[in-house]
Amino acid sequence: MDAKPNGEYSSDRVVDGPTNPMVTPLLTDLYQFTMAYAYWKAGKHQDQAVFDLYFRKNPFGGEYTIFAGLEECIKFIANFKFTEEEIDFIRQSLPPSCEDGFFDYLRGIDCSDVEVYAIPEGSAVFPKVPLLRIEGPIAVVQLLETPFVNLINYASLVTTNAARHRFVAGKSKILLEFGLRRAQGPDGGIGASKYCYIGGFDATSNVAAGRLFGIPLRGTHSHAFVSSYMSPDEIIDKLLLSNDGSSICEDFVGLVQTWLSKIQWSNSLRGTFGETNQSELAAFTSYALAFPNNFLALVDTYDVVRSGIPNFCAVALALSDLGYKAVGIRLDSGDLAYLSCEARRFFCTIEKEFGVPGFGNLTITASNDLNEETLDALNKQGHEVDAYGIGTYLVTCYAQAALGVVFKLVEINNQPRIKLSEDVSKVSIPCKKRCYRLYGKEGYPLVDLMTGENEPPPKVGERILCRHPFNESKRAYVVPQQVEELLKCYWPGSSDNAREILPPLKDIRERCIKQLEQMRPDHMRRLNPTPYKVSVSAKLYDFIHFLWLNEAPVGELQ
Amino acid sequence: MDAKPNGEYSSDRVVDGPTNPMVTPLLTDLYQFTMAYAYWKAGKHQDQAVFDLYFRKNPFGGEYTIFAGLEECIKFIANFKFTEEEIDFIRQSLPPSCEDGFFDYLRGIDCSDVEVYAIPEGSAVFPKVPLLRIEGPIAVVQLLETPFVNLINYASLVTTNAARHRFVAGKSKILLEFGLRRAQGPDGGIGASKYCYIGGFDATSNVAAGRLFGIPLRGTHSHAFVSSYMSPDEIIDKLLLSNDGSSICEDFVGLVQTWLSKIQWSNSLRGTFGETNQSELAAFTSYALAFPNNFLALVDTYDVVRSGIPNFCAVALALSDLGYKAVGIRLDSGDLAYLSCEARRFFCTIEKEFGVPGFGNLTITASNDLNEETLDALNKQGHEVDAYGIGTYLVTCYAQAALGVVFKLVEINNQPRIKLSEDVSKVSIPCKKRCYRLYGKEGYPLVDLMTGENEPPPKVGERILCRHPFNESKRAYVVPQQVEELLKCYWPGSSDNAREILPPLKDIRERCIKQLEQMRPDHMRRLNPTPYKVSVSAKLYDFIHFLWLNEAPVGELQ
Repeated sequence: MDAKPNGEYSSDRVVDGPTNPMVTPLLTDLYQFTMAYAYWKAGKHQDQAVFDLYFRKNPFGGEYTIFAGLEECIKFIANFKFTEEEIDFIRQSLPPSCEDGFFDYLRGIDCSDVEVYAIPEGSAVFPKVPLLRIEGPIAVVQLLETPFVNLINYASLVTTNAARHRFVAGKSKILLEFGLRRAQGPDGGIGASKYCYIGGFDATSNVAAGRLFGIPLRGTHSHAFVSSYMSPDEIIDKLLLSNDGSSICEDFVGLVQTWLSKIQWSNSLRGTFGETNQSELAAFTSYALAFPNNFLALVDTYDVVRSGIPNFCAVALALSDLGYKAVGIRLDSGDLAYLSCEARRFFCTIEKEFGVPGFGNLTITASNDLNEETLDALNKQGHEVDAYGIGTYLVTCYAQAALGVVFKLVEINNQPRIKLSEDVSKVSIPCKKRCYRLYGKEGYPLVDLMTGENEPPPKVGERILCRHPFNESKRAYVVPQQVEELLKCYWPGSSDNAREILPPLKDIRERCIKQLEQMRPDHMRRLNPTPYKVSVSAKLYDFIHFLWLNEAPVGELQ
Repeated sequence: MDAKPNGEYSSDRVVDGPTNPMVTPLLTDLYQFTMAYAYWKAGKHQDQAVFDLYFRKNPFGGEYTIFAGLEECIKFIANFKFTEEEIDFIRQSLPPSCEDGFFDYLRGIDCSDVEVYAIPEGSAVFPKVPLLRIEGPIAVVQLLETPFVNLINYASLVTTNAARHRFVAGKSKILLEFGLRRAQGPDGGIGASKYCYIGGFDATSNVAAGRLFGIPLRGTHSHAFVSSYMSPDEIIDKLLLSNDGSSICEDFVGLVQTWLSKIQWSNSLRGTFGETNQSELAAFTSYALAFPNNFLALVDTYDVVRSGIPNFCAVALALSDLGYKAVGIRLDSGDLAYLSCEARRFFCTIEKEFGVPGFGNLTITASNDLNEETLDALNKQGHEVDAYGIGTYLVTCYAQAALGVVFKLVEINNQPRIKLSEDVSKVSIPCKKRCYRLYGKEGYPLVDLMTGENEPPPKVGERILCRHPFNESKRAYVVPQQVEELLKCYWPGSSDNAREILPPLKDIRERCIKQLEQMRPDHMRRLNPTPYKVSVSAKLYDFIHFLWLNEAPVGELQ
């Protein structure tokens, strides 16, 4: 793999391939090849098609989604080319009657005739509005359907999930993604780390993701580390140089024991705990000897209040004697609200009793099966947690494990196409479209508007009718204070259009954070949020309904 | 990628790397490296540790799990080695105070001192019983925790999900995995295809998975294919050679039109439908011209009963005239029970009316957001579906998106270790253990039994006491009719033990199917299944409770 951190590309340079080298033109459904063959056989493979990629419903019971996965799609099409081995495999997978000419055709195709317009990655997006509009020879564009949907579906879902966790946790908390082990496969984990960072997380435990994307890394030790020690007698090298290098503590283990007694018999803490677990004390001491400047201890292997916190404090105070400042503790079980408050009280008592400035402000990290609901419950109970490590529920999107992204044909050879369904929400919006976000006086986005490709764009200060695409009674006049065209050219194909630069990961993350801050608060509520409006122009509305009547068979009641 | 289909390895050959080249020693949590450093700094890195990998609760409300992911773990450790670039990155990710000697140590490590014992992949497994027992130098084994858990968690979860879908669908149905586009990332999709095949699916739509693992591929066309056609006039090349090559039909389009009229005005079908959708008819005709021997049509783009089925039948009858046998239809929306029965009735009527033998038995495939519940509901309603294409709910494990696989230290330097928790179900079972499955008279497995490493194994025909590990009142005598040792050596490390061969994918699939057939039916029920019993020997029981009392601090009520 030769992916670069924060992949920065200018429009005139070669684009690297997808992060995962398994993302090849074969990562698609077989029917894309059978259709390509049927198109080719009918001489229809060069027909100019326009497809929209969109979703129908926001996830997690919310009213917004963050769009992500675009960079991987562009990296994919920039390098789209079949190898001979791949063509051989496709040949074996199709009926033997398929003609050789088709495989010659496959050998020659790439995405140089495909145009991709997209909403910038990290944007807040809404149902039915195309995230991508892909135009090109129908056989080629069809081949992109499955990989594009795959690359965008989970990316957008988990970014949205991360953004929702950030929303509940609040801006001031540190959010750590700890999900690699529970993710759905290796790049479920790598993707989660990337997209949770975009969604507003601060760091990950996943070293591979840190390397690939330059995401800050975090991590200290596990329960196994604690229970791998039997007692402080095991620690042979007890020396610790002071932080400024001016002195040496010959027996750091002894210093820790001294502090443990001092705490135990101090005026304000006497009687709060008895004998602490010695294997835990040994583990903490050993960890501090290895990382005197980064001492963070997992305190719940045996008993948080009676063993973990006192042991941690003894080691932290010994470090403090030598000029080191401990980082804090991690809680991974039990009543996190209660335990975090107990820990804070203990820290503050020590700050006061022993006059150690800042000891009361040590960081408390919590990390036990957290999700939106538990964060919300912690907020309601009151707690002293500074940082959250979130895994399973975040990365697997446990509350809703898939987003229904679809890829629908909307025009072929300049003829608009519609996909009907008995379920109105599944009817596609035909035509090659332009999409706009209209902003109101207060600076909030008011409505997204889709129009036909050749309609005049909405103008600032000019009243325009916005209609619900399928419900004739839902419509509103809007006088936009700002008009933003949503779809930008990320892959110009053979056109002369300028290509948008793929921004570095940090810029995508910034965009996501800013977009969410810009939304009207009632769209963002966890409970009963107001739906954001998505509309079509009057002209497009009429056309949709003309086409619909045209295509649907007339029933006969018998 | 140079993975081989059905990777067959003998124990004396080199083992290929993991399927996904992103599975490297960096695909782990940062804390594995901070712990490794702390162990190394304390001179403890070579301590001999034993870890168990297990889960605590069966997924999906069931009482069984299928173990999968072992082959990928073995491929991972067989090639475990840090590159210089990786070591550089680890150095940058740790505090600058970390000593150079540690990175020299990392440079030298591999898994030649690690022993892995495991239950064979594709086995039915149960909570608390180790799926893997990993023994070796603690610093190295810790580094394996995250990738092992990642590789096994989703693999076992989705295999189990597939097995559950097979159980509800019944043995006679064809099950197709169609989930690539909705999977959690690219190898969420590739993994899903592999593990759903193990769990009892017959084929996948995922071409990359077909190539990597030799899984049968299936797929025909989408709604977009149908709506990409406007009318039969578009079809220029109307020639079709008969199946035996003896004659040419000059105007297949005309033949289809003729058949459509014949059906429309036939005695038994007159009045059941009016004018069918012409773009659909064109698409079906064109697809049949491309694949006359593999004609399967998606019939719900416009209206299943009034357009899709009649159009399909017209094309299928035209093909039949030329000696080709159509495959059938796919339904992707609406009331699948009703529509499948309507389709079957239509087919049977045609078989009778036009004397086309076998037409009534054409395959009906259904594929709209199916899951265990909808399959069960279809069974209850009565239906005529022969094959199911299942995507989202299957591959994302929507009903439960993660399995709680853990990796716990159970022994270090021959000292048993226990991880306590206020939640009894989270207390780990200490000691390096042996595990057995005991079978009863009827041939069903009765109970899994864990013992200490050096206890005598249970013997056929000899009564043995099996105890619940934590509940003193739950115990039973068992006289096994067959005893199976569960953990086998898959990676002998530096020992002389023989290594189990990694079986080809088909054998793993066979094992899974057989294991499930062997289970007592009440464990397999969808509703209120009976838990399968997992137990420890009397000696291990006593030892667990001795250690527990020893480690837990005594409280003081105040």
